[in-house]
Formats: sequence, C-alpha cells, structure tokens
Amino acid sequence: MLHKFPFSIAYADTDAGGIVYHGRYIEIAERARMNWLKEVALPDNDIGFVVRQLNIKYIKPLKLKDSFYVESEITKIGPASLEVEQKFVKDGDIYAILTAKAAYIGKDLHTKPIPEYILEKITKKEG
Amino acid sequence: MLHKFPFSIAYADTDAGGIVYHGRYIEIAERARMNWLKEVALPDNDIGFVVRQLNIKYIKPLKLKDSFYVESEITKIGPASLEVEQKFVKDGDIYAILTAKAAYIGKDLHTKPIPEYILEKITKKEG
Amino acid sequence: MLHKFPFSIAYADTDAGGIVYHGRYIEIAERARMNWLKEVALPDNDIGFVVRQLNIKYIKPLKLKDSFYVESEITKIGPASLEVEQKFVKDGDIYAILTAKAAYIGKDLHTKPIPEYILEKITKKEG
Amino acid sequence: MLHKFPFSIAYADTDAGGIVYHGRYIEIAERARMNWLKEVALPDNDIGFVVRQLNIKYIKPLKLKDSFYVESEITKIGPASLEVEQKFVKDGDIYAILTAKAAYIGKDLHTKPIPEYILEKITKKEG
Repeated sequence: MLHKFPFSIAYADTDAGGIVYHGRYIEIAERARMNWLKEVALPDNDIGFVVRQLNIKYIKPLKLKDSFYVESEITKIGPASLEVEQKFVKDGDIYAILTAKAAYIGKDLHTKPIPEYILEKITKKEG
Repeated sequence: MLHKFPFSIAYADTDAGGIVYHGRYIEIAERARMNWLKEVALPDNDIGFVVRQLNIKYIKPLKLKDSFYVESEITKIGPASLEVEQKFVKDGDIYAILTAKAAYIGKDLHTKPIPEYILEKITKKEG
Repeated sequence: MLHKFPFSIAYADTDAGGIVYHGRYIEIAERARMNWLKEVALPDNDIGFVVRQLNIKYIKPLKLKDSFYVESEITKIGPASLEVEQKFVKDGDIYAILTAKAAYIGKDLHTKPIPEYILEKITKKEG
Repeated sequence: MLHKFPFSIAYADTDAGGIVYHGRYIEIAERARMNWLKEVALPDNDIGFVVRQLNIKYIKPLKLKDSFYVESEITKIGPASLEVEQKFVKDGDIYAILTAKAAYIGKDLHTKPIPEYILEKITKKEG
C-alpha cells in the first residue's frame, strides 16, 4: 500500500539558500507517517515506532509555495522493526527519497513484535 | 472574512513537556497565512508581508495527534500594513490567540501600499 | 541581573527571505532562558516555568552567520509568575525585543509560588 | 582534523517522547558545520557546500538539558564533493552518528572544485 500525504511549503520550511532546508524533509516525512497512523491506537501503553536509522537523498530542491506529495511505502518488515521508503513527489518528479528504519518499542522501553492490526493497516492493498 | 486552515500535530511540533512547543504556534500560524495567500501572486517583485510585531496568548495546550483549525481574520488595515488575528480552535475551544502586525514591503525593501487585489482577497465576505 | 547568551545563526535559522525566520527568535530566546537556569534543579518534581504570553518586536533582521547576544532580564515578579525581557543585540544594536510572561507550575499542574532560590538565582546583582 | 562543537539541549530540540526529536540532530549537525567554517569566506559568490545525501544512526537518545559535543571529521574528499562524519558525544559515549555527502556548488549552480584554502582549513592536522 502506498500512502499519499499532501503538503505545501511555507517560509518556516525554507532557508537562506532560497530552497527547503535539508533538515525539514525529515520533519515533513514524520508528519506523513503520523498521518498514516493517525487512526491507529497503540495497545498496552506501547511507545510505538522509534526511528533507528535514516537515509535521505536530495535529488532536486523543493521551494517556497511548492505543493507536493509524500508517498510512503513499507519496504521491509522484520519481527520487531520495519523499513519505510518515503518519496517527495511533485508533478510526477521525485525531489527526495528518505528511508527510515524503525523499531517497535513497548512500554518497558524494549523492542517487541509489531501488533498484527498495525501491520495490516500499513501493508494492506487498499489505502 | 474568516480563513480556516486545518492542521494536525506531529512529534516535530511537540516538546518534552508532552505538549506543543510554544514556538511552534508561530510556525503553524505562518503556514495558515501562506495557505490563505497561496493563489495570490505578488506584483513587481515585491517582498510582500513582513511580520513586525507578534503577540501570542497560550490558553490551553495542544497535544500530539490533536487536529484543529487556525482561524485567521484581518482585524486592522493601514495604508501599508495590517493586523491579523489567528485563533487555534479545537472542538469549539480556543487554545491560543496570535496577533501579528505585518508591513507590506516592495522590492526596494521599503514599505508600500498593499495592492488592491490582495486587500480584496483577504477582506471579502466569502472565503 | 542581565544574563548574556551568545549565539550564531546557521541555515536552520533562516528562511527564503534571506533573513532569520521570525519564528526562530522564540526558539533562540528559549535556549537563552534554559542556559540561564541550567544549574537550577527544580524541587518536588515541579513542572517549572510555562510561557503564558509572548510578545516580540522585530526591529532589524538578523542574517546567516550573524553572531550576537540574547540579553535576558527579569522585569516583573509576581507571586507565581514573572516577566522576562530578552533583547537580541549585535554590535550594540537591538535587532528584536521579546517579552515573555511565564507562570510557575507545580507537579499537580497548578500554579505555585516560585521557589526562593530560583528567584535569587535570576534576580541577583552579579551573574 | 577533528572539529568539536559544544551544544546544550533546550525544549525546542525535544519531543513528546521526552527525548531529542530525531530530526533535530540534522539541524544541530549543520550548526556544527557552520561553526567549523565560520571564518571561511566563499570566493566568487559561490553557493558553497550543498548536502546531497545524509545518513544518521540513532544509538542512544539525548535528553533535555544534556550538554555534549558534535565531533566532525572529513572522511572522503572528491574533486567537487566531500563526506563528513559527525558524532554526537556525551561523556565519552556516542549517541548518534551522522554522515553527510556534500557537493561544492558555484554561483552558476553547477558543481566545481572545492577551493584549495577551504580544503586546507578542514583537513589540516591542528584545529
């Protein structure tokens, strides 16, 4: 399943180079993931997903007032972790690709298996 | 005219107090103003509105995953400046009120009269 | 007592207007206040100071690579609240003035008197 | 050469998980690089270094009021690009490792050889 999150660039996202600040892509990607899971309640006071590693490739710069989509997709699933790929897409062109590895953490602060219904939510065919 | 901008809180917006970081309201308010003016092209390479003074009153704290509206309204119009009031409203309750005074700046970096069609856009009765 | 906090502007602080983003002054001011209180431990699991109202006047724009001081001073003290004024000063010129009103909050989430030793720390003559 | 940049965590850097927001490490790393190059003037209106790819591994979470160093070191040098490794180190422990690949961009927006005196500044034995 591909989750699409629309976003528009404000001054807060840009820097003096006249483009979107490279660190902002990470925030916008997190916003997209939150939107994806917004209806998912975590069980048992679990902490939930915690980012362990993150890779981002900047291909073309996004700019002030640009409107685009973050397209998110699960690319790997382990017993207590997963990998998500997030593309910043404007008018069919990819501006950046982010890959995040996240572990699922329980309330005891240790990794634990991702609950079945969360896996279903983020891997099902229809969005 | 009242402009309504929907927004949802992600981790990026929060702080270790468990609530939305007080500085983030300023960014979200700017995002709402950008959305309001997104179809307005500035003439003559004008710089546009620049915030000169800003006041914000924190009434109740917004939290992670909260969805709400920023309701923006022009409250004063001067020859080369205006005042906008922006309320953070969730389920009918006001969480914060921001007032911003902005000057309109031309490409020569000096204030100049706000173009007529921009005034019309932000003051007309219907949104 | 005047607390001075040195800071330098990076790309993260700027926006596409080529100047420091207006919302960033609020973050930098908070950083200065944290530095002021860094050796002060809060008693009894108190929450501590929470900003209730904030006013900022932008006088001149700070820019990329600018180095300056945030000069903070207590301007009012109430039984359970205080007001701090923070000036952004570069080479003797004031670029922005922020005034924050903060309440002191205990662990029960209600206001309570500011502990005596904290008042002493932030009001004593010598820094 | 190893460049060391001291930093302290304020509320602005944290999130509702009670730790430093994962996106903030990227900003703090940029601040450290700016500090490194603060005395280096770019020639010929060059744009300078632009981050093309970024990888970060989160090992242990930094928290509110933590004071630490960002230790930066050039790990690869190409004709018009370089790779820098940046470690977040508190009390001898590594909390995160960031690797950034940056291209050197001239005023015509194309890559060009990194000026000799900049290479010297960031690769010399003594800091």
